[in-house]
Amino acid sequence: MARIYNFSAGPSTMPEAVLLKAQQEMLDWQGSGMSVMEMSHRGKHFMAIAEAMKNDLIELLAIPANYKVLFLQGGATAQFAMIPQNILNGKTSACYVNTGAWSTSAIKEAGKYCQVKTVASSEDSKFTAIPAVEQWLIDPDAAYLHYTSNETIHGVEFNDVPAVGELPLVCDMSSNILSRPVDVSRYGIIYAGTQKNMGPSGVTVVIVRDDLVGLAPKSVPSVFNYEQQAKSDSMLNTPATYNWYLLGLVLQWLKGEGGVAAIEQRNIHKANKLYQAIDQSSLYSNPVSKDCRSRMNIPFVLADASLDKEFLSLAAQNGLTTLAGHRSVGGMRASIYNAMPEAGVDALIAFMAEFERTH
Amino acid sequence: MARIYNFSAGPSTMPEAVLLKAQQEMLDWQGSGMSVMEMSHRGKHFMAIAEAMKNDLIELLAIPANYKVLFLQGGATAQFAMIPQNILNGKTSACYVNTGAWSTSAIKEAGKYCQVKTVASSEDSKFTAIPAVEQWLIDPDAAYLHYTSNETIHGVEFNDVPAVGELPLVCDMSSNILSRPVDVSRYGIIYAGTQKNMGPSGVTVVIVRDDLVGLAPKSVPSVFNYEQQAKSDSMLNTPATYNWYLLGLVLQWLKGEGGVAAIEQRNIHKANKLYQAIDQSSLYSNPVSKDCRSRMNIPFVLADASLDKEFLSLAAQNGLTTLAGHRSVGGMRASIYNAMPEAGVDALIAFMAEFERTH
Repeated sequence: MARIYNFSAGPSTMPEAVLLKAQQEMLDWQGSGMSVMEMSHRGKHFMAIAEAMKNDLIELLAIPANYKVLFLQGGATAQFAMIPQNILNGKTSACYVNTGAWSTSAIKEAGKYCQVKTVASSEDSKFTAIPAVEQWLIDPDAAYLHYTSNETIHGVEFNDVPAVGELPLVCDMSSNILSRPVDVSRYGIIYAGTQKNMGPSGVTVVIVRDDLVGLAPKSVPSVFNYEQQAKSDSMLNTPATYNWYLLGLVLQWLKGEGGVAAIEQRNIHKANKLYQAIDQSSLYSNPVSKDCRSRMNIPFVLADASLDKEFLSLAAQNGLTTLAGHRSVGGMRASIYNAMPEAGVDALIAFMAEFERTH
Repeated sequence: MARIYNFSAGPSTMPEAVLLKAQQEMLDWQGSGMSVMEMSHRGKHFMAIAEAMKNDLIELLAIPANYKVLFLQGGATAQFAMIPQNILNGKTSACYVNTGAWSTSAIKEAGKYCQVKTVASSEDSKFTAIPAVEQWLIDPDAAYLHYTSNETIHGVEFNDVPAVGELPLVCDMSSNILSRPVDVSRYGIIYAGTQKNMGPSGVTVVIVRDDLVGLAPKSVPSVFNYEQQAKSDSMLNTPATYNWYLLGLVLQWLKGEGGVAAIEQRNIHKANKLYQAIDQSSLYSNPVSKDCRSRMNIPFVLADASLDKEFLSLAAQNGLTTLAGHRSVGGMRASIYNAMPEAGVDALIAFMAEFERTH
């Protein structure tokens, strides 16, 4: 079969150029006589791959020198626990903003370790809006403030970095990292699973400001300790080496595409097209406030939900797959991360129009 | 360059047939139009891959029905903390056997959570022997007994399952799992990183008896909780999907080779050859007691350590790489896991003989 357009929310479509390069290097990386996945993580070949990957990420996100960049495991879900375990620093509470399913999960896990103060929530609107930052009930004595910059399931995205005063700002950027420029210096911690904009699943990028490293009590597991991971260059345990390599290939690809500023323009263009198609239709609709619609994950519902099954089935026959919305919200969702080509969005829009015409 | 023989201790050489299959399926898995790494972990394609992989592991190791089989992250190092965090069950101590560097690391981490009773140690012999089980000072009130079935750095391997009475037996099998048949029913927990006998790094297999699941206190991070992971089929966070797939390919390969009993015979044959070459030489020697020499990791030293550099350099020129011993012990080490072909062992033996002849 020809390659399809896969709108999966994560793991998600990869740049074809990355897959081709990985395919070509599978049995012999650059004359080494080995696959990257066979290399010792302490050997010169892999150390070079790891260093280039890290440097490319630092360059692409313009990460300041006073941040540690870690490549860990366990996904955002592990960070939900690691963050309070590492940076409460004797404080007993932390502020959380609840803008959707992922915020909610972060709040639940943090509750094991501290008093969670939910300073704002859009649950009443079924997570279709973001409460204005001026109305957040921020507690200046909390250890940090956590928010989710893009809600993968609800399709809600922050367009600005919220101003929260002196509190360290902690952000789950799993589903929009590298899709737009970001001022890293505004953050205490940025973290993100790789499986949306950075490659296959299996790596969690954690960017943590120096003053938040070294605060964990001794009871924290070593692999969960930012300081121990930073001291060992994220090799406290054998890292997921092949995943690091693929992440590196994606970063090289992104540099070749012009970097984060260039990809942002493409992402705006792709998202605008699809939202326009939805808004102009009488069959499809998106419930999210226009000021916080996600560029990455675009949920939509059909006016007649009994058509859902046929929509999905016909879409798949047309090479447009994984369009079902998350089971918690239903409907449809098109995830159009960096690697989704504009032609994929165009094909989806054309299919939607044809489906509407015939139904 | 042609494919080399790579004696890395982990990540380590892969079966070439697995790499070829992964290469062939890289852009399009079985007509799906996607790479496996692009698939949603909740989709039908990946669910089928995951289920087949798990069933193959259950079949190869003959895992009884009263065990959960988990595919986690964080390596053995994460398990060093997870085990006491999950199964102390109100007890305050655990028994550990110290047979080398990995046992030592497990002991150090467990010490954060309980009183560690080191019931036996071969540290006095520089970890070249295994204390007889009859002499272990087992405390029947401890929560469990932990040992390391193969010490990757010191080249020491248990040939039998130690009889420890009623205590749940917990074993780090990272470096010899699937290299020999094992009676799983003798264990409370078996765990192993994948990066030696099971594929690339990035997955930790945990086989845990039902009665040890569900004992963790609420303060344990969700991704560290065996019960939560078991209930979600190891998908509490997005799993390392491509790594699961590659693990599955390795298991299929192993089945094709005749399974664990067949590979054991090959492993015995390969190891015997290499130990014989070492023992008959006057340049090379292995310090480990003959009754517990590892079939997987074979360390040896040169009588004149000033020749080490030249040995390694000439070996690499002959396509025999990653033979340096671990930095903590020096000398040489040949790791000859399941995927190392006999031809690789033969080539190493021939090179060693030629080096001895000319030096």
